[in-house]
Amino acid sequence: MSTDVIKFASNLINRESVTPTDAGCQQFMMELLTQQGFKHELMNFEDTQNFWSVRKGKTEGPVFVFAGHTDVVPTGNLEDWHTPPFEATEKDGYLHGRGAADMKGSLAAMLAATQQFVQDHPDHKGSIAYLITSDEEGPFINGTVRVVEELMNRKQPIDYCVVGEPSSTEKLGDVIKNGRRGSLTGFLKILGTQGHVAYPHLADNAIHKSYLALHALAEEHWDDGNEFFPPTSFQIAIEQAGTATNVIPGEKYVEFNFRYSTESTADGLKQRVLDILNKHQLQYQLDWKLNGEPFLTPEGNLLTAAKKAIKQTCNIEAEALTSGGTSDGRFIAKTGAEVVEIGPVNKTIHQINECVKIDDLKKLVDVYYGVLQQLLAK
Amino acid sequence: MSTDVIKFASNLINRESVTPTDAGCQQFMMELLTQQGFKHELMNFEDTQNFWSVRKGKTEGPVFVFAGHTDVVPTGNLEDWHTPPFEATEKDGYLHGRGAADMKGSLAAMLAATQQFVQDHPDHKGSIAYLITSDEEGPFINGTVRVVEELMNRKQPIDYCVVGEPSSTEKLGDVIKNGRRGSLTGFLKILGTQGHVAYPHLADNAIHKSYLALHALAEEHWDDGNEFFPPTSFQIAIEQAGTATNVIPGEKYVEFNFRYSTESTADGLKQRVLDILNKHQLQYQLDWKLNGEPFLTPEGNLLTAAKKAIKQTCNIEAEALTSGGTSDGRFIAKTGAEVVEIGPVNKTIHQINECVKIDDLKKLVDVYYGVLQQLLAK
Repeated sequence: MSTDVIKFASNLINRESVTPTDAGCQQFMMELLTQQGFKHELMNFEDTQNFWSVRKGKTEGPVFVFAGHTDVVPTGNLEDWHTPPFEATEKDGYLHGRGAADMKGSLAAMLAATQQFVQDHPDHKGSIAYLITSDEEGPFINGTVRVVEELMNRKQPIDYCVVGEPSSTEKLGDVIKNGRRGSLTGFLKILGTQGHVAYPHLADNAIHKSYLALHALAEEHWDDGNEFFPPTSFQIAIEQAGTATNVIPGEKYVEFNFRYSTESTADGLKQRVLDILNKHQLQYQLDWKLNGEPFLTPEGNLLTAAKKAIKQTCNIEAEALTSGGTSDGRFIAKTGAEVVEIGPVNKTIHQINECVKIDDLKKLVDVYYGVLQQLLAK
Repeated sequence: MSTDVIKFASNLINRESVTPTDAGCQQFMMELLTQQGFKHELMNFEDTQNFWSVRKGKTEGPVFVFAGHTDVVPTGNLEDWHTPPFEATEKDGYLHGRGAADMKGSLAAMLAATQQFVQDHPDHKGSIAYLITSDEEGPFINGTVRVVEELMNRKQPIDYCVVGEPSSTEKLGDVIKNGRRGSLTGFLKILGTQGHVAYPHLADNAIHKSYLALHALAEEHWDDGNEFFPPTSFQIAIEQAGTATNVIPGEKYVEFNFRYSTESTADGLKQRVLDILNKHQLQYQLDWKLNGEPFLTPEGNLLTAAKKAIKQTCNIEAEALTSGGTSDGRFIAKTGAEVVEIGPVNKTIHQINECVKIDDLKKLVDVYYGVLQQLLAK
């Protein structure tokens, strides 16, 4: 199974599947899974391809899901790549190509681990399932979020889910992500009255009015975080106001973002922002976008199994963290499943010359196999 | 002379002299002045046409200057004009066309007043001069500022100067501008460290850092103004920072503008801005542009003559004000001359369907004549 993972990963990397294009990756995965007795269901929405595949074992539960995405981010400047991004290339112990680490390598490791596990345990407990999308790097509208919605509508239980996101930071297995912070964005327009700088008494400068309220938001202590989450963080990311040096601006546009812990809720944060703006007697318009609610998978069967598999394969103690950006794990957690992310070292993801250690990919197969074995072997 | 002013104004309006184009306006003016015994000197710089003309009288001084510009601002949407902007049209007692009020009407009134005065007083005291440019509505780089530089180099004295800017607000002669505030612009870049919003501890948000210092600048009391000037005003006109909601901005760009009284100086204001920024321990880059220093013509021969001429012609008491935007008067004031701006009602300037009351243009000839008579008649 060690050689299969490189073969599978290379096959996927060679397909130019920039979001939301799939370029046959999912077809390739399903063909391999068919050989292992999986049944597939295509769940395509608009421009996005998704599939849900299940191999039923000897008992009703538990249901174990491998989740991931076949799409990759754009290459950036092609001339800066040392090897063609869509031609998997083995070099100095690394497999090079766009998606090698995020996350075609992980998909290949899932397939190799599944193949081996089904061969070793054809009568395993529960079910093994795959939830794969081609829209994780994009606007995440028609991908995992829609599939999960559909699965929840039909009351499909999910007990455990391993997402193949590249969670490792220095070496394979050093970090398991067992949750993610929530992400909430505010789009704020502060209103004043436009005028000419030569006649300030006729105008009301929207920029001048904004400072104390925005400063209060930037200084606010939102919560203390908890055992699993750092304190909620608030960042103003964009400010835009004014057109010319002789015009007093009548509007100021601001975008800000919360990364929030399970100690806060989106509604609670919204209310506190409104309170601060109103306290400063501003006139404003405010719209919100909830990019993802926070989720957390505390100690349980899945996290225990993941740590043990990493210990056996890599001989290190994995740390469970909730830091970093968002992932599709947040949508799957809504089903009530235990969700963790385990994947290769993320140093080169989204960069020119993305690559993954060949040895790490082989070990990742063993980690995934170890998790399956602990949860589904008879 | 009443009919001549409309003829002259129409001739000028019919020439499409959008900045810095002159379209023969100055040639037309010089031909008329030649008939009155003026000697001309072309002082063109790059794309800008200027001339300086003098009619010497019987004594060395005083030197009286009519100053103005032949260029006009663009028309805007032609379809919105009720009459073609470059075809002077008399309608309902108004003369319509681009530049009618700003300031081809004034130029015509100067010419008509000069013609009549020279005819009535061929042996007048001192000199009458014209300082005309085609770059007042533009970047004011190669116009009046360059001509004044040249005149000062050769130690040309100027005692009195009437600029034809449309100073009147409700009716002809209600306002004389006897000075203007200074204008100083600052271009500020506040520096932080860029980062991802998911990792705020690795970044230093330039927006968050900026608030207290900018608030302090906006709240600062710069001076009390004086009898002639309102207090110095500070306005932040432009703010720009950030690129995406998930990126903590490493820079914030700010443009601000002072309109300042003679109680402050450009250097003094600059130093106080630096002190406030430094007190808030910001890292920043700051560039300045001095658009114009303030000037003031207090009570004296010129203002007295102007008020009296307006009283006699319009039967109102003119108010001397320093409010409003900048004008070329600020450059001429550097020579030490007494400078005032007297011109038609400015309600339609820079607008679609610019126009001037025909009766006002005729009265303006009498006002200019009255000023000449008081200062230069024997």
